[in-house]
Amino acid sequence: MKRENFVCKGDICYSQNLQTLHTVQNGYLVCENGVCAGVFDTLPEQYKNFDILDYTGKLILPGFTDLHVHAPQHRFRALGMDLELLEWLETHTFPQEAKYADTTYAKENYARFVEEMKKGPNTRACVFGTIHGASTEILMELLENAGLCAMVGKVNMDRNSPDYLQEESAEVSAKDTITFLEHMKQKYPHVTPILTPRFLPTCSDTLLTKLGDIQKKYKIPVQSHLSENTSEVEWVKELFPTSSCYGDAYDSFGLFGGESCPTIMAHCVLSGEVEIALMKKRGIFVAHCPESNSNLLSGIAPIRRYLDEGISVGLGSDIAGGTRCSIFYAMAEAVRMSKMRWRLVDESLAPLTVPEVFYLATVGGGAFFGKVGKFEKGYAFDAFVLDDSRYDNKGEYNIAQRLERAVYLSNDDEVLHKFVAGRQLF
Amino acid sequence: MKRENFVCKGDICYSQNLQTLHTVQNGYLVCENGVCAGVFDTLPEQYKNFDILDYTGKLILPGFTDLHVHAPQHRFRALGMDLELLEWLETHTFPQEAKYADTTYAKENYARFVEEMKKGPNTRACVFGTIHGASTEILMELLENAGLCAMVGKVNMDRNSPDYLQEESAEVSAKDTITFLEHMKQKYPHVTPILTPRFLPTCSDTLLTKLGDIQKKYKIPVQSHLSENTSEVEWVKELFPTSSCYGDAYDSFGLFGGESCPTIMAHCVLSGEVEIALMKKRGIFVAHCPESNSNLLSGIAPIRRYLDEGISVGLGSDIAGGTRCSIFYAMAEAVRMSKMRWRLVDESLAPLTVPEVFYLATVGGGAFFGKVGKFEKGYAFDAFVLDDSRYDNKGEYNIAQRLERAVYLSNDDEVLHKFVAGRQLF
Repeated sequence: MKRENFVCKGDICYSQNLQTLHTVQNGYLVCENGVCAGVFDTLPEQYKNFDILDYTGKLILPGFTDLHVHAPQHRFRALGMDLELLEWLETHTFPQEAKYADTTYAKENYARFVEEMKKGPNTRACVFGTIHGASTEILMELLENAGLCAMVGKVNMDRNSPDYLQEESAEVSAKDTITFLEHMKQKYPHVTPILTPRFLPTCSDTLLTKLGDIQKKYKIPVQSHLSENTSEVEWVKELFPTSSCYGDAYDSFGLFGGESCPTIMAHCVLSGEVEIALMKKRGIFVAHCPESNSNLLSGIAPIRRYLDEGISVGLGSDIAGGTRCSIFYAMAEAVRMSKMRWRLVDESLAPLTVPEVFYLATVGGGAFFGKVGKFEKGYAFDAFVLDDSRYDNKGEYNIAQRLERAVYLSNDDEVLHKFVAGRQLF
Repeated sequence: MKRENFVCKGDICYSQNLQTLHTVQNGYLVCENGVCAGVFDTLPEQYKNFDILDYTGKLILPGFTDLHVHAPQHRFRALGMDLELLEWLETHTFPQEAKYADTTYAKENYARFVEEMKKGPNTRACVFGTIHGASTEILMELLENAGLCAMVGKVNMDRNSPDYLQEESAEVSAKDTITFLEHMKQKYPHVTPILTPRFLPTCSDTLLTKLGDIQKKYKIPVQSHLSENTSEVEWVKELFPTSSCYGDAYDSFGLFGGESCPTIMAHCVLSGEVEIALMKKRGIFVAHCPESNSNLLSGIAPIRRYLDEGISVGLGSDIAGGTRCSIFYAMAEAVRMSKMRWRLVDESLAPLTVPEVFYLATVGGGAFFGKVGKFEKGYAFDAFVLDDSRYDNKGEYNIAQRLERAVYLSNDDEVLHKFVAGRQLF
């Protein structure tokens, strides 16, 4: 439903900054001309004629951004988690992604992914499709029609991939990417393309050079994987012997951030000092995917370190390295994994707290889309209404405590209403 | 509903042993005289006149045992997880437990715990109450009436506890324990008492001596905590300077296993060689609580090592160190945490697999109750019917794969039917 001006009344919470929650009980969250106008204890005079949507007693939170998710892998999430990464890719991931050559198959299965994303707390996502342009365009259409905001990439793979899932050549991969971009660059207001080399091992130097040129020409953002696990990092070292680090190899092709190239790198579990310095210099967004990093035996990324350095960090489900779409789940796992890193690896990096992972889920990832993730004036109006009555709060907990309980206890069925970019989805 | 003889038809799965799943598609699980008679591809002649409960297309699994859970903490689960253990105990746990002095409060809140346990996949549990005998008796009545099987303990604490949650003396603690045992030892068929010293720091030598005597006299099992986190282990060393390890201190009071003293010890995260040898010698059951151990910054127990040694292991939710009651959740966390232990601490101990944690959830913990956790002849008939259609399996996955998806994707709302000790709860 499209409304330009309205007010949501309820128990409101958002992150002012990494440490500080702003909470207002029985407050008013105002949407004016489709954009957030702020949160108020009492409704200011100028909004008195706006419709009031009464969610008294419910939590109203900013929508979450899933900064790293593979849409075609949603189909087989939570399968083969006992396999090693390479075996998992060969047994499940690659054969599954190959099926998306068929647009009918793609339409049916992407619809399920979009449906799950729509009903949960995530309002925005940065999404990997497959190498198939036509199917990726279908995914974008489904996301746009569902009312969600997303950046979506046709994936590039021209080497080190199974025959059935490898593009014919660097030229074909680049040409298909340009076709995809020409189709999609201005097609939808809320769903836009993003350049998506799968990761360095599956992209030849020729292809990476071409992608660098395409990035410059189209000025589109970039997403890929970085320093996820040991064997992958070793492999990249072999493939790019002259690079100072994994990130430097991307950088040499102009695919590693900088002002005109906003870039998300997923994982960053094993980034060393040189890479961290480069990530910081280039303004890389880290997509932290704690569930995936434990499922696939990768390790635990030093997120506290990145935050201390001022590096941008958001959270990702990394379906199907991760199994759960809701970023609530990634928040709980991010806290737990940071505790285990503190306990088992490095006591100098304090564990993440619930307010901090809430910041990452809202402002941290949202910032990749611009002014997103807060309920302050001028921010996109992304919000959801959560019914936390199942947790038996009985009015005895404050909003920060109720938020914490939602982080740990939320299932997929408690989002009552949802707004994305000022539009009410349900 | 009480039926003595019936058959459940559906897709059946149970653990034959730690590594091996037994699966039968469209099979028949027979309950005869209230006890399991086995699983069959085709229904044997002698059962042809039994009622058939048709769960075609649904998974039928053995009920799970929660080997370690604090019922009074259910009320505030998922709260204060950013606090250090001691601060958490003082802020939430101890004040909350003190409220159970009031039996009206206890009745209301224990009813919520029992309701949640009833609707989920857990059929049995070993439960901590509080120091209050009357409230603990109410908890047992609620569990019995709900049709669940449990061992429940009135907790002992006569030192190092806040004034409002400390028993007056070792004598009073022992006397109240005897009163509780006299009331409850034969009151219910399915819910029985278990001796429950909270842990060594809250029990004086005098009290432990008396509890050892009570154990011998009543021949009841014991549950407590062991080697959970660093500061606690240090504290126990100070309190029992002549003991060779934490477990040895329990042992010196006759509260650490042996043939006539079946004992569960929760956590065992930091057990050393001497303690492991003693655990093995005494037949200790380890209650592995991976979610709690990460939430409370304790670390990751070496479960593979315990299994290699032949030590009995089950899973625990450890509400409210853990947040989720369903043992499905503990299974997923047990796999993940074992992977992180492998990656970050010790590559000689292979990660746990899904079949293995399924074994722990069913046979591993169930064994504390006797022949429980398998669908073999003579085992207790504990089972639940899971509707896994939400995961979109579309008939393409085998039963082992569907089990894996349930482990990672299950919420609390997919158990359609449940049987405990031959009785159908719903």
